[in-house]
Amino acid sequence: MAYKDEKLHEEKVFKDPVHRYVHVRDRVIWDLVGTPEFQRLRRVKQLGTSYLTFHGAEHSRFNHSLGVYEIVRRIIDNFQNREHWNHEERLLCLTAALLHDLGHGPFSHSFEKVFKLDHEYFTRAIILGDTYVHAILQRVAPDFPQKVADVINKTYENKLVVSLISSQIDADRMDYLQRDAYFTGVSYGHFDMERILRVMRPMEDQVVVKESGMHAVEDYIMSRYQMYWQVYFHPVTRSAEVILTKVLHRAKQLYEEGYTFKCAPVHFETFFKGEPDLQAYLKLDEAITLYYFQMWQEEEDPILSDLCWRFVNRKLFKYVEFNPNTQMNEWMELYKLFQKAGMDPDYYLVVDSSSDLPYDFYRPGEEGERLPIHLLLPNKELQELSRKSEIVEAISGKKRTDHKLYFPKDLIERLSKRSKTKKRILEILYG
Amino acid sequence: MAYKDEKLHEEKVFKDPVHRYVHVRDRVIWDLVGTPEFQRLRRVKQLGTSYLTFHGAEHSRFNHSLGVYEIVRRIIDNFQNREHWNHEERLLCLTAALLHDLGHGPFSHSFEKVFKLDHEYFTRAIILGDTYVHAILQRVAPDFPQKVADVINKTYENKLVVSLISSQIDADRMDYLQRDAYFTGVSYGHFDMERILRVMRPMEDQVVVKESGMHAVEDYIMSRYQMYWQVYFHPVTRSAEVILTKVLHRAKQLYEEGYTFKCAPVHFETFFKGEPDLQAYLKLDEAITLYYFQMWQEEEDPILSDLCWRFVNRKLFKYVEFNPNTQMNEWMELYKLFQKAGMDPDYYLVVDSSSDLPYDFYRPGEEGERLPIHLLLPNKELQELSRKSEIVEAISGKKRTDHKLYFPKDLIERLSKRSKTKKRILEILYG
Amino acid sequence: MAYKDEKLHEEKVFKDPVHRYVHVRDRVIWDLVGTPEFQRLRRVKQLGTSYLTFHGAEHSRFNHSLGVYEIVRRIIDNFQNREHWNHEERLLCLTAALLHDLGHGPFSHSFEKVFKLDHEYFTRAIILGDTYVHAILQRVAPDFPQKVADVINKTYENKLVVSLISSQIDADRMDYLQRDAYFTGVSYGHFDMERILRVMRPMEDQVVVKESGMHAVEDYIMSRYQMYWQVYFHPVTRSAEVILTKVLHRAKQLYEEGYTFKCAPVHFETFFKGEPDLQAYLKLDEAITLYYFQMWQEEEDPILSDLCWRFVNRKLFKYVEFNPNTQMNEWMELYKLFQKAGMDPDYYLVVDSSSDLPYDFYRPGEEGERLPIHLLLPNKELQELSRKSEIVEAISGKKRTDHKLYFPKDLIERLSKRSKTKKRILEILYG
Amino acid sequence: MAYKDEKLHEEKVFKDPVHRYVHVRDRVIWDLVGTPEFQRLRRVKQLGTSYLTFHGAEHSRFNHSLGVYEIVRRIIDNFQNREHWNHEERLLCLTAALLHDLGHGPFSHSFEKVFKLDHEYFTRAIILGDTYVHAILQRVAPDFPQKVADVINKTYENKLVVSLISSQIDADRMDYLQRDAYFTGVSYGHFDMERILRVMRPMEDQVVVKESGMHAVEDYIMSRYQMYWQVYFHPVTRSAEVILTKVLHRAKQLYEEGYTFKCAPVHFETFFKGEPDLQAYLKLDEAITLYYFQMWQEEEDPILSDLCWRFVNRKLFKYVEFNPNTQMNEWMELYKLFQKAGMDPDYYLVVDSSSDLPYDFYRPGEEGERLPIHLLLPNKELQELSRKSEIVEAISGKKRTDHKLYFPKDLIERLSKRSKTKKRILEILYG
Repeated sequence: MAYKDEKLHEEKVFKDPVHRYVHVRDRVIWDLVGTPEFQRLRRVKQLGTSYLTFHGAEHSRFNHSLGVYEIVRRIIDNFQNREHWNHEERLLCLTAALLHDLGHGPFSHSFEKVFKLDHEYFTRAIILGDTYVHAILQRVAPDFPQKVADVINKTYENKLVVSLISSQIDADRMDYLQRDAYFTGVSYGHFDMERILRVMRPMEDQVVVKESGMHAVEDYIMSRYQMYWQVYFHPVTRSAEVILTKVLHRAKQLYEEGYTFKCAPVHFETFFKGEPDLQAYLKLDEAITLYYFQMWQEEEDPILSDLCWRFVNRKLFKYVEFNPNTQMNEWMELYKLFQKAGMDPDYYLVVDSSSDLPYDFYRPGEEGERLPIHLLLPNKELQELSRKSEIVEAISGKKRTDHKLYFPKDLIERLSKRSKTKKRILEILYG
Repeated sequence: MAYKDEKLHEEKVFKDPVHRYVHVRDRVIWDLVGTPEFQRLRRVKQLGTSYLTFHGAEHSRFNHSLGVYEIVRRIIDNFQNREHWNHEERLLCLTAALLHDLGHGPFSHSFEKVFKLDHEYFTRAIILGDTYVHAILQRVAPDFPQKVADVINKTYENKLVVSLISSQIDADRMDYLQRDAYFTGVSYGHFDMERILRVMRPMEDQVVVKESGMHAVEDYIMSRYQMYWQVYFHPVTRSAEVILTKVLHRAKQLYEEGYTFKCAPVHFETFFKGEPDLQAYLKLDEAITLYYFQMWQEEEDPILSDLCWRFVNRKLFKYVEFNPNTQMNEWMELYKLFQKAGMDPDYYLVVDSSSDLPYDFYRPGEEGERLPIHLLLPNKELQELSRKSEIVEAISGKKRTDHKLYFPKDLIERLSKRSKTKKRILEILYG
Repeated sequence: MAYKDEKLHEEKVFKDPVHRYVHVRDRVIWDLVGTPEFQRLRRVKQLGTSYLTFHGAEHSRFNHSLGVYEIVRRIIDNFQNREHWNHEERLLCLTAALLHDLGHGPFSHSFEKVFKLDHEYFTRAIILGDTYVHAILQRVAPDFPQKVADVINKTYENKLVVSLISSQIDADRMDYLQRDAYFTGVSYGHFDMERILRVMRPMEDQVVVKESGMHAVEDYIMSRYQMYWQVYFHPVTRSAEVILTKVLHRAKQLYEEGYTFKCAPVHFETFFKGEPDLQAYLKLDEAITLYYFQMWQEEEDPILSDLCWRFVNRKLFKYVEFNPNTQMNEWMELYKLFQKAGMDPDYYLVVDSSSDLPYDFYRPGEEGERLPIHLLLPNKELQELSRKSEIVEAISGKKRTDHKLYFPKDLIERLSKRSKTKKRILEILYG
Repeated sequence: MAYKDEKLHEEKVFKDPVHRYVHVRDRVIWDLVGTPEFQRLRRVKQLGTSYLTFHGAEHSRFNHSLGVYEIVRRIIDNFQNREHWNHEERLLCLTAALLHDLGHGPFSHSFEKVFKLDHEYFTRAIILGDTYVHAILQRVAPDFPQKVADVINKTYENKLVVSLISSQIDADRMDYLQRDAYFTGVSYGHFDMERILRVMRPMEDQVVVKESGMHAVEDYIMSRYQMYWQVYFHPVTRSAEVILTKVLHRAKQLYEEGYTFKCAPVHFETFFKGEPDLQAYLKLDEAITLYYFQMWQEEEDPILSDLCWRFVNRKLFKYVEFNPNTQMNEWMELYKLFQKAGMDPDYYLVVDSSSDLPYDFYRPGEEGERLPIHLLLPNKELQELSRKSEIVEAISGKKRTDHKLYFPKDLIERLSKRSKTKKRILEILYG
């Protein structure tokens, strides 16, 4: 039997807290799960620094990747024998679902920002490069790796396939909303996925949802909205991100300045140089990163060691609301006061805006990458969700930005009691 | 106000997926959570290698410690104004609950076995030594650190306090059963804790349970039974433990033999020498351990690098049932065959018995450390649980041992097709 | 000890699927639950005819009343020792919560419409009249029955007390949303009540919610929105209501016309006459109502017997969308066609509008009876919810009406195949 | 297309709180659900008088019947293409599952005992008699009604089919354990049905369970054990059964004695005479029964009116433990004291034994009707569960009987304070 059609002797299952079981019957899927590149996702947390806010959020991208695979598997099961659905695309869909996050590195968001990386680039690199994953995909068919990469890259010709993984209501989001809600323990993030899967229908170039399922979709959109504001943009998580980012910045700066590290940043070198190759990228997971952060607590550079100490021991920055449009003067004054007090403001006075984050709870049309949600009306016409749903219309497209100013309150408090600088800093920050 | 009575300005909460919220009102508790020693528990997994079997089981001991604290807090709330309960012990109970696992190191079970460590020793050392935790406890009262250590050590004079943390139905177990069930996603591990908390009553030297709550306690005992066999003794988890243990053994052996490591085992040295001090112990968490394992994949020693590769990439050993009483001859033969085939049997042919593990789902009397469960009858007399409950009687005290033989099936299969050794090995293993 | 302060020897609990346990410690509450008038609520379904749509929705008002009591009990527990909270009002709050629905009769909505009844009138009548409930309340204090009636009537002077039972976020709604979701099995209706209870604060004349709990409140409002459209206004439930209403109309009409019933409507007589007294009202529960409906299936009057048969055996009317503004001509034509076909249109052609139903998912200001939700800002000022929450603002105040036309499709289909009337009726209905 | 193969244009779903959705695709099933005989099950509670103990337990047999159907549907879906499974039996299985409880009357247990009825007899009568259900089954095939009756009667030749509905681990029990746990709100009754369904395998004459699923089956057996003792045999529920039984006895006795009822027991006449025909049986549901009980509160006979008042208003009997082997003398004395005090002991002094109830949590071999559970070993042999499972072995076959003595404590307390009879009665009962 061709490798692509090979079935396991007996179906394998993973016990999954969110979907109860993840079922695998295809040899190809089973083999992919076993590769070092996929197993590496166990060492990358799904929610980055969120575990410092929600202690339950210690789950990895390995978890999530299996979940996305399982949802696509269930969707496809329902598609069997329906018009527009080409059963030949099945394995491609499953594979792309499983591998869609393969290129994520440690604490992706911060790493990508500081080192100007792109996890999607590395996902492709792993799929197309000299890897265990590639070897398996190659065995399916010579053009299979490229196809998988195209689906994840959203350039695959059959847009229906793409939309399973990347649209406003794709398997990716349906998994992470539920999974992140489960592990953080928040009461948002629940919606009736079983219902949504039942009303999904394949169309020529996208998956659509029967109108009778509109309320379930509304519930999903609302979950997303709540998860963004309650979990993903949580200011304490962002405080940890700020520190993480500053650690990376500092280490890079020191490296460029020729600073002699006690613990040399071997794994980081190609990153600092702006040209990490695939092998270097694959080696740098969160365990390795934490190793350096723990070691660097003992570096001579006071900023690097302090920031690492903060991250490792969760001594985060505090924050206040900050409006960059009206408070630039205050910011300027603070900047100088921080300098005066010996706290380098480039590292210790940070404005962070939620709008920098991937804010997309629902914006039809605005966002190039993700297809909007279409309802399938009884008369077989399609209608974009926000035109039918009052609630979705009400919240969609509204860009809500939230700026905060982060700083080390403990250091400020340690300034001399009689210090005018201290007094003035506190005055500006807390009024 | 005395530090020990100080309350937070406003109650703090942690969102917890198992208990919904963990509530903190005492300044002392809040300060302890913030110490580096306690934050370190975030880098030690609650279930060691179980995440390689149940992918959801990535939760840390930090999680669990907060949970035990919360359960004790709720029990004590119910005890208020009851006879036998001394409200003065409140803070001691909460503190001991929070800190009871403080001394756990990375992958405790294997580390303790290989290096002959005792996490309870280190718990005491952290509480009594020169640490942030100690400084806080000291502020409560000069003898407070010792009291906390005594409670955890089960030598504290008030046995009622001890029994909250260490008995057959203590807060420790009630938390871990539920938490481990939640994160693995198994359907066992659920019982009606709310009911049990309501029927718990303080007595002179222990916590007892009103007879009307017997069925809830039976359910708890059954959960434990199922969790032991379904989760804690899972043969795949034990396979990962076997490999982990062998990595540590090998590294130690090489170190003793004067082998030159490419990546020197700096963090392990005092362990190899059998005399880890507190600081070395605190530094060696699971991120650090994983760093070495990843680095050691590239060591020259083929056994160390192979075993590390297996652990990091989850290429575990396979297993068959093995009865040491009747199968010693087979084992002897296998031992020689493995030698012949170039697979060092000391590392690649391992018998593992579940009875080595802390098997204690319920053995009244047999186990020195943990008090059995007593029911409080309507006539105010006490009765040991297994005398009243048929189910518990039926399963208690029965020691069920389960032996398995672990080996690298992949290496065996890679032996030459015509090899008689290979043929004979497979014959013995699979019949 | 005064009766009002009397505690049960040991706390009693009811196992409750929604709140896990309902706790009763006050003798007064326990005695009230035991009265025939309160036990009668077991024979009145919480959701009327909804069980014909959602088969799980068979729960009674007894269930819900205990739930509302329990929520108020929890809120008050949190209020202890807070400013604005007068502990003397405790028993009054609990009693009013328990009894707030005492006057509900069978299938309230339809009965009230047909017989122009008002369940709140009967609630007061039971509390103030010659009943077991009254005797108990009287024992508390001579003016206690009147106080309880005033709270339920929203005329009690302490508006804070009123707002616990009757506001936009009162215990009544928090219970029924969760309870109805639980029993119907829909995935809406969930919100983080525990969080909301924690952020509720007593103020001079209302309960308010700390701003930090805004997202939990948003979730609650969204649950309400979804429950209204998915459950409470479900067109199949409304179809059953339509038939129920028409049964009552027909029986009343026949009674007025002097028709001789095989099974005389003894229990209904005072209702038909427009003057049901308290005793007659208390006797007429849903079991009695169903008795008559079953018996009346065998009446000679073809309309009464057909409608009763439909209700008992769930042969409901079908429906189509109907716009009274633009489709009056069609309706006129249908009316005549129905007459021609021998189907009395007053009973078999019914327009039902959801706006007739108590549509109130959130309308600040618009609705006299229910106080809007106020957020308590950090600066201690209050702000009406929809001014702060985009989502709530988006959906509040929008009155969405939904009209449907109900008719017996089975009867239409049974008309002769060649009948032009039949053809035309189907044409108008289905286009 | 043949009626038996007819599919609905679009699959229909029922929202079910236990199984989330019940799916119907077969026209036959849909038509059966719509029959008056099946709809009648909405008016028969699943757990009889248990709602007087667990207020949530108001669910009907309609609920449960759909649930059993759904479980069988899922089992069969997994059986497709397996050896031993004959797809031709599919519709028969589904139909038998749906209809297996069709003959249950109001408060079955008490009615059957008093009137010596057998609900299985009536199930057959409905299936084979002149009913809507029969007409539909007849359309499938002339011998189909008899086949369905045979399956429910356990006489059908293909025992595999029978075992789906009637064995120690059939769909019936799997549904009711979960459903009754859900509606009562108890924390027992949960087990991993999804896992059990996955490991079920069809064999020649029974469904068996793969050995790897043994622990899930153990959990199911334990759930059963707990549900029996915590819910089904609850002494308060049995108190309500006692009163119900005595009402029926009294009414029958009065009828036989020629007593003139104010409200004549029209619906009961054929029952009193010992020869209820099918039509009479179908008419007597729980609404009708409650109608009579409410009316009979006003009968002149003091026993009938008192007992009815007790049932309607939940003024139940109290109870004490009673050992018939050692306490017959006390019982004899009480009997006489009750007579002396004017409380007819035949109605007011009742011994009730749990062993009268269908106690069957697991007894292999002992019980003729239900097949024991067999495990399918890897070597394809079968082994009876209790031979493999220590826990099941421990609890199986042990018959635990529990006797209680029920009496009206309120009446006893109302006896004159100085009455020696009263004093002695209380002495015997409470020691």
